[in-house]
Amino acid sequence: MRFATRDNSTADGELLVVSADGMRGLSAGPDWPHLLGALERWDAALPALGALAERLAAGEGNAIDGATLCAPLPRTWQWLDGSAFPTHGELMQQAFNHAPIETDKPLMYQGMSHQFLAPGGEVPFPSADDGIDFEGEFGVVTGLVPMGCSADDALAHVRLIVLINDWSLRTIAPLEMKTGFGWVQAKPACSLAPFAVTPDELGDAWRNGRVCLPLTVEVNGAWFGNPNGDAMAYGFHELIAHAARTRSLAAGTIIGSGTVSNPGYDVVGSTCISERRAIERIAHGEFRTPFLSAGDRVRMQVGEEAAHFGRIDQQVTLAR
Amino acid sequence: MRFATRDNSTADGELLVVSADGMRGLSAGPDWPHLLGALERWDAALPALGALAERLAAGEGNAIDGATLCAPLPRTWQWLDGSAFPTHGELMQQAFNHAPIETDKPLMYQGMSHQFLAPGGEVPFPSADDGIDFEGEFGVVTGLVPMGCSADDALAHVRLIVLINDWSLRTIAPLEMKTGFGWVQAKPACSLAPFAVTPDELGDAWRNGRVCLPLTVEVNGAWFGNPNGDAMAYGFHELIAHAARTRSLAAGTIIGSGTVSNPGYDVVGSTCISERRAIERIAHGEFRTPFLSAGDRVRMQVGEEAAHFGRIDQQVTLAR
Repeated sequence: MRFATRDNSTADGELLVVSADGMRGLSAGPDWPHLLGALERWDAALPALGALAERLAAGEGNAIDGATLCAPLPRTWQWLDGSAFPTHGELMQQAFNHAPIETDKPLMYQGMSHQFLAPGGEVPFPSADDGIDFEGEFGVVTGLVPMGCSADDALAHVRLIVLINDWSLRTIAPLEMKTGFGWVQAKPACSLAPFAVTPDELGDAWRNGRVCLPLTVEVNGAWFGNPNGDAMAYGFHELIAHAARTRSLAAGTIIGSGTVSNPGYDVVGSTCISERRAIERIAHGEFRTPFLSAGDRVRMQVGEEAAHFGRIDQQVTLAR
Repeated sequence: MRFATRDNSTADGELLVVSADGMRGLSAGPDWPHLLGALERWDAALPALGALAERLAAGEGNAIDGATLCAPLPRTWQWLDGSAFPTHGELMQQAFNHAPIETDKPLMYQGMSHQFLAPGGEVPFPSADDGIDFEGEFGVVTGLVPMGCSADDALAHVRLIVLINDWSLRTIAPLEMKTGFGWVQAKPACSLAPFAVTPDELGDAWRNGRVCLPLTVEVNGAWFGNPNGDAMAYGFHELIAHAARTRSLAAGTIIGSGTVSNPGYDVVGSTCISERRAIERIAHGEFRTPFLSAGDRVRMQVGEEAAHFGRIDQQVTLAR
């Protein structure tokens, strides 16, 4: 099943079940007003939502106006972002002469979850001096995960899969990282692609706890990269188990993969500017690609057809 | 005004307005079923809640059974914890031979906010091997804070003040800190004292954006420390402005002071075991106070009388 959320001037929006081609939708109605509520009572919600999916498959439903869509989860209780693609970390370390990060566990930080931005429209940032960057990521949305959940048991708690632009501010990020406290100012609100999908929708592309699909990024209409989500050093099941080691995870928790990155970056490119700059510095001794400024447009989707998740297509604006 | 939340088997509990002596309460009723909802429409909620406070002042209300109370906010959208007491940081650096943390800004990380534990009862941890510790903190609960809010404007967004036990796992914390990503496993759910109070309740003790009151900690019935909240290097207004530099803060955001700590720690003690161990190591070359294990009891309150916030009084248990 595929879900979207329509802006109805409430904080959580209105839940829509969406047709397989992403063109038509049906409101889930007053019993299931929003996706967060459905996630909190998933087993009870599934029959009603499945019945709507069947009606959509039979040709019912209303045309979806993309301009009215919010993030599928406009807010949720927890956002834990990993950094599971080793190529990304290795490039950053090489370019900036960092010591490798010493850990035998997945890397993960907690980011803001009270606001996820809609897939279209403008994204306001305080200042271009902050080094405005994007990060293309896949993520999973969990049900309630008990504390101590093992990696073996974790995949059963994956309810939905999402495509994320984890907006990042690169002038601030290394300063906050150096404190050891993680990122607050360097990680403003993320954006989500319009459709959240159940894992079965991905078929064989959902395997080993990984989204084995190319994440295609364009900046101002030009190709930037399309690395594949299959190259995670840890699968989402391992990220969930890591997150749940000393806490339960609330239904609606989003776990992110970190910036999608592949060893063949010279062919498949990158999903963030910072990584491309690292590659430039290693190859040429200098940064060549600037960070973003007002009017720049960032598009993220899977493949040419914006499969499964639809398309993030946003423009950077400056709040001052 | 003073607020509490009664367990009614819902995720957010039932909002109570509480008498000035903390003994009696009145349900805020169906219009204001829970505190998070009231915070989201504070200006609309205040007249109704104020009317209940007046009835309580006139002697109405029902006796409060402390065993039925949840955290005043059993869950909320965001928990950002500072580390604003310089004595604490200096002791940790000296004891563990760390370089000082290089920053000219407040220290802050984002912690889990989907669960705050009730002030009484048992707290389950995975293992005593994790180095179970407490941290006594004051915190503020904000309304909606716009991105870019200045420190000068920030105090107007403080709705409530709370007393927090920020449970911490010391075996894990330095390993996570070293990654630069901040803490996930080292910071399980916090506990909140039963009463959240409006700033005016504190009178002169709420000044310069600081809670100028002693935070008294007892472990297994023995005094552990009672340092004062006045010694923050940054006030809560500065912590709020720091947090809102690149994001808006949702109504219900809790901002923490970090472990309360004073320069006169040889007299006033500490509000976490780790700091006491640092003092021991500096003075004697060895740690003397162990971390917590099953059955240990931690109490936190203001002064002898558990003024304003009531009392956190919990027992450590092991989930395995």
